[in-house]
Amino acid sequence: MAEGAGGTPEPIGRLIDEFHRLPGIGPKSAQRLAYHILRVPERDALALAEAIGDVKRRIIFCSSCLNITESDPCSFCQDQRRDRTIICVVEQPLDILAIERSGSFRGLYHVLHGLLNPMDGVGPEDLHIRELVERVRAGEVTEIIMATNPSLEGEATAMYVQRLLAPAGVRVTRLARGLPSGADLEYADDITLARALEGRQEL
Amino acid sequence: MAEGAGGTPEPIGRLIDEFHRLPGIGPKSAQRLAYHILRVPERDALALAEAIGDVKRRIIFCSSCLNITESDPCSFCQDQRRDRTIICVVEQPLDILAIERSGSFRGLYHVLHGLLNPMDGVGPEDLHIRELVERVRAGEVTEIIMATNPSLEGEATAMYVQRLLAPAGVRVTRLARGLPSGADLEYADDITLARALEGRQEL
Repeated sequence: MAEGAGGTPEPIGRLIDEFHRLPGIGPKSAQRLAYHILRVPERDALALAEAIGDVKRRIIFCSSCLNITESDPCSFCQDQRRDRTIICVVEQPLDILAIERSGSFRGLYHVLHGLLNPMDGVGPEDLHIRELVERVRAGEVTEIIMATNPSLEGEATAMYVQRLLAPAGVRVTRLARGLPSGADLEYADDITLARALEGRQEL
Repeated sequence: MAEGAGGTPEPIGRLIDEFHRLPGIGPKSAQRLAYHILRVPERDALALAEAIGDVKRRIIFCSSCLNITESDPCSFCQDQRRDRTIICVVEQPLDILAIERSGSFRGLYHVLHGLLNPMDGVGPEDLHIRELVERVRAGEVTEIIMATNPSLEGEATAMYVQRLLAPAGVRVTRLARGLPSGADLEYADDITLARALEGRQEL
């Protein structure tokens, strides 16, 4: 009999397991998603399956900035209107989307695909830092903006890159720390407030 | 250029859209899931794609009870140890799992695949009520348990089926209403408490 516990047909049980492996999808959500797939027209369900396959088949990494792309070099690295003297270093491709949405940056990017994390065994050789050093050595770059998260790992990674690139004479900056726009002083946490005071600016 | 707004490659954008169409998956979650698919090994990503395809290819509906199954009739309808005189009527296949988990029912099932909902244009002909009437007419059945949700639609559907089957001389019951096990009287809602009082039982 090809049925699992409680009479769930094997393909459904397997689909529930696969959904459950996705981040943020609990067992109940996985079950609901699997039964949703069962109910929708075959065309809609297969569109999702094909989109998954397409991503794995067609997406590659830019050989210059390591961003995800369909063609190498990526559209940012190809774009001659962008400032090639500034590189913004991010943890993951999603961060690029956030920075682009801000509309405040017109330079190039570099994706590390991770942050230094000695506790989890992630060292400099696991990130794409070597490629960044090579881009700086090529000569055109004058500033590196470290746009890593304001977390322990993000700060450690920024400091590591800064020390590595200082001898090359390139300017290494990082995103400002302070109160987020629209925040309420009363509810700001201590560290954010301390950083906002440290980084206070002339009016 | 095959890039969308903000430099998202087309396959990623399409996968985000497909995830976003799933119930309970917002735009941010869809984005996170799509980038997760990008990161995991190809084998893991394709396992999800194949599980989706398998569900659509291999799952059929039982010709007797309309439950989902890989082989017709389903394992419940095939199981000669189950009581064939009682049919438990549910809205969807997931409800069968819940009832099986309770371990308190050993009869057969019937899946309506929906509930009466005139507001959304769902009438009796959209549900599998005709098949239920035929099963009752076949003669073996003595009791129909309406296990539809205690909602407006669930109650309306139960009442409709009751009126339809009354002339056939079959007993139509529904699940008891009352306080859920482990509930706190103080926090029970008015209707639940009213139903629990109405249905009070001798100790």
